[in-house]
Amino acid sequence: MTVTVPAPQRIATESDRPGFRLTVAEPLALDAGVALGPYTIAYQTYGRLNAARSNAVLICHALTGDQYVGEPHPITGKPGWWDTVVGPGKVLDTDRYFLICANVLGGMGSTGPSEINPATGKPWGLGFPVITIADMVRAQLKLIDHLGIAQLFCVIGGSMGGMQVLQWAASYPERVFAAVPIAAAARHSAQNIAFHELGRQAIMADPHWCGGNYHEFGKRPERGLAVARMAAHITYLSEQALHRKFGRNLQDRSGLTYGFDADFQVENYLRHQGITFVERFDANSYLYITRACDYFDLAAEHGGALANAFRGVRTRFCVISFTSDWLYPTSESRATVHALNAVAANVSFVEIETDKGHDAFLLEEPEFFATLRGFLDGCAQHRGLERP
Amino acid sequence: MTVTVPAPQRIATESDRPGFRLTVAEPLALDAGVALGPYTIAYQTYGRLNAARSNAVLICHALTGDQYVGEPHPITGKPGWWDTVVGPGKVLDTDRYFLICANVLGGMGSTGPSEINPATGKPWGLGFPVITIADMVRAQLKLIDHLGIAQLFCVIGGSMGGMQVLQWAASYPERVFAAVPIAAAARHSAQNIAFHELGRQAIMADPHWCGGNYHEFGKRPERGLAVARMAAHITYLSEQALHRKFGRNLQDRSGLTYGFDADFQVENYLRHQGITFVERFDANSYLYITRACDYFDLAAEHGGALANAFRGVRTRFCVISFTSDWLYPTSESRATVHALNAVAANVSFVEIETDKGHDAFLLEEPEFFATLRGFLDGCAQHRGLERP
Repeated sequence: MTVTVPAPQRIATESDRPGFRLTVAEPLALDAGVALGPYTIAYQTYGRLNAARSNAVLICHALTGDQYVGEPHPITGKPGWWDTVVGPGKVLDTDRYFLICANVLGGMGSTGPSEINPATGKPWGLGFPVITIADMVRAQLKLIDHLGIAQLFCVIGGSMGGMQVLQWAASYPERVFAAVPIAAAARHSAQNIAFHELGRQAIMADPHWCGGNYHEFGKRPERGLAVARMAAHITYLSEQALHRKFGRNLQDRSGLTYGFDADFQVENYLRHQGITFVERFDANSYLYITRACDYFDLAAEHGGALANAFRGVRTRFCVISFTSDWLYPTSESRATVHALNAVAANVSFVEIETDKGHDAFLLEEPEFFATLRGFLDGCAQHRGLERP
Repeated sequence: MTVTVPAPQRIATESDRPGFRLTVAEPLALDAGVALGPYTIAYQTYGRLNAARSNAVLICHALTGDQYVGEPHPITGKPGWWDTVVGPGKVLDTDRYFLICANVLGGMGSTGPSEINPATGKPWGLGFPVITIADMVRAQLKLIDHLGIAQLFCVIGGSMGGMQVLQWAASYPERVFAAVPIAAAARHSAQNIAFHELGRQAIMADPHWCGGNYHEFGKRPERGLAVARMAAHITYLSEQALHRKFGRNLQDRSGLTYGFDADFQVENYLRHQGITFVERFDANSYLYITRACDYFDLAAEHGGALANAFRGVRTRFCVISFTSDWLYPTSESRATVHALNAVAANVSFVEIETDKGHDAFLLEEPEFFATLRGFLDGCAQHRGLERP
């Protein structure tokens, strides 16, 4: 493998998107049967890699996440998406661990459909090959190789990030000391696919999508993407959370207006989620990343038996689900745990009681934090990592 | 009240939409604070009204339903939407009961946003006043008056139809001998509103919607309406039903295509649902009817206490929910039952065990049918209706 090896350093090719970039010259063999390359992985790191190179934690981001896990997003200025967990003294303690978060292939920053296709000089658009969760992980492996890390102390992530965690443990078990898939599943369910297809149809229905070539026409399918985001956002919250946050409360008005404005707070909230999302996210990336999730089925890759995916694995697992998560319900995590049990893997399973729904993994959840901290401390002891 | 009283007869002003029409000259005072009139109610009847006029059953249709409850739809040719329940010898036995089903105000056939506004000579569009569930019921009352029925033997309906049932019992208790709200709620929850708002935003995002004036431009916001329908359709099915029907099965192909076609059966199903829906439904009607649902909050109309809505009611209630219905979950029906209990109303409550989700009320559900039959038989006996 020929790897172009820039020393990890801040670069400023895009002033609005600071961070590290690794460009790999050797093409990546994708599940789609085609080779992609050269390709670039955008990533951020936090903390310091210790001398033994044994304290690296790879954080895998969710569908619309990014590499800015522990610092403000360069465009929105909002805190890092896992600010609750990442930082000095926090669960993912930057004084103890070397944290790595890479933008997924197909995403934004890493090579994806909005980047220029070197063969045509134009943005890839739908010419970009469909990628899979396994492809994302293959690309991440190149980054880990590049960083000279033989074994990650931990791979951790929620939602689509959790799928990547499972894929890491299945594809490269010897490279993963501990794995924490959170609010995830080993395959996308029919309902999961249905919601993603709904979002894709909303994007493709927007005439500004231009068959995926909107960049060429100087357009953006903003309204379609906003609708897709609204749909997804409903699935991230539980019915109880929506009731608690909004109920039937009115938005800045004392009575119903008998019109189609956002009378209700929940309407206003959804509209806001749609509008702010399109400022930071690319519509084609949304298509590709949702597709990668839909294609995910770890059992199918292993002859139909999920347990086969983990046979012989020595990784320590901590599987976490949330009671009110109806997007990736506990039953999905339990299926993963059953498969791990069937091959006598080292696994602990915790279902956190919360009414916050799928989004709970991004929020203040003391029991969740305590679970993570306990598991990581135990693993760190086994791995011989010193306390900071 | 001045009512233009055409004898109930088949008319043929629209050859593709046969059926009865009642035009009421006297304007209807709407909740929005405006008067609508004259207005037309399109309806169908089945069976014969007995001499005592005591065997009339009003069937209230759901969001995208219509008056063709027991006969093929004139456009799609599909069987009546409650074909499982309506017919000779069936639960709603046309040999025993006189069934009435009226298209809701704001819908299609009855006066709604696609009809011509007599004041302008153009389709109403967004100039049509926002209507409520109570307005729909007010208009139905005029029809029942017109038909000379002092008291309906039963008012029955599922989903939005169930909301109308509750409104009937609250507004005109003396006109309702028995009431059967199925898979419904006494108010629209934040999550319900969110899904409806998603659908409305999808429609309004379609440039062919033209600010609601698409009729004038010879356009139809078909893609937006299809997306709205897809979103709604996901909510009508349970996760288990989607899994059982489709799972991760592929559509007419042996492997993934690594593209954005409908690889999965569930994608193909949703696309089909969207496409067929736009053939029969009007986008503005979708906006108005979803809005009516969102505004529904029977407790709010009665000082915040749902029980007040039913104080003194002598109607017999049978409240029915389905275990896997996550759109109008059992907890909502239970809230209605608690309110009815609080005023010592005559109420029975049955939660039907099924994995079919919200749509169960439209499907073959023997326990559901048995419940309905038992309740109706008991009420018929009390009402002195003879067996056919």
